Amino acid sequence: MDWLLFLIFLATCFAAGATGALFPPGDWYKSLSKPPWTPPDWVFPVTWTVLYLCIAAAAARAAPIDGSAYAMAFFALQIALNTLWTPVFFGLRKMAGGMVVIVALWTAVAITLVLFWRLDLVAGLLFVPYLVWVSIAAALNFSVWRRNTGAGAVSPG
Amino acid sequence: MDWLLFLIFLATCFAAGATGALFPPGDWYKSLSKPPWTPPDWVFPVTWTVLYLCIAAAAARAAPIDGSAYAMAFFALQIALNTLWTPVFFGLRKMAGGMVVIVALWTAVAITLVLFWRLDLVAGLLFVPYLVWVSIAAALNFSVWRRNTGAGAVSPG
Repeated sequence: MDWLLFLIFLATCFAAGATGALFPPGDWYKSLSKPPWTPPDWVFPVTWTVLYLCIAAAAARAAPIDGSAYAMAFFALQIALNTLWTPVFFGLRKMAGGMVVIVALWTAVAITLVLFWRLDLVAGLLFVPYLVWVSIAAALNFSVWRRNTGAGAVSPG
Repeated sequence: MDWLLFLIFLATCFAAGATGALFPPGDWYKSLSKPPWTPPDWVFPVTWTVLYLCIAAAAARAAPIDGSAYAMAFFALQIALNTLWTPVFFGLRKMAGGMVVIVALWTAVAITLVLFWRLDLVAGLLFVPYLVWVSIAAALNFSVWRRNTGAGAVSPG
């Protein structure tokens, strides 16, 4: 693996991950009704740190391979959506808006995974935990949104 | 140009640009002391729309070229930083934090421009207006930050 390339992609993930520190969950999130399977708060930064290492390693393996144009386009799309989600959910407290972003993110991650897999098996495998975690995060976003808005009501977020 | 690839990169820019609608300047920005050369508010969305079209076109030209790995790594870095700036500046109202992000963004855009230029002259040229505009935005961020914090004081932002 090209380590300089890995570090540039890691810096990219760091830019996305900085939103976690800049827009912390805080009292608002604590006050929300959450499903019983909600992971404890400390799990999120730990998981994201591991995921960002996997994401950067996957990109550093895939990017130099001929024919990676679409893979890198979807990689750029997913990292922009990843950066966007936290400010929308925790910054603006828009639970419905967060849902829109995370469904788009899930789709972009899934497509990137498939395209990475075709280029390099290891790169594809390194994206699997990311897709699993975004699935959990999307389910949590959905559950929190439904639990904290009136049944059938249009969400203010 | 591969138009499907262009549309994926345009969606990426749209994710970054959505922050402009989600975190509008509002009364806080209006109340700040600004330099006399500050562009009027309507200039920003118009300029960004044109820039995003140029950015997506540049990426769609550069990505399929062999040896584009570093270019696409810095492209991913700049789009993450681009997505990050607006929530930091307008969402959190962190003028010093915004300065950190925009200096990193300027650097990533400049490096992407050089790497795109080496791959494809047109792709490099399409990034020139972006670098010019980020330079203006960085100067504006700096000026607003200095004008709205005490001389020599540590900024609360």
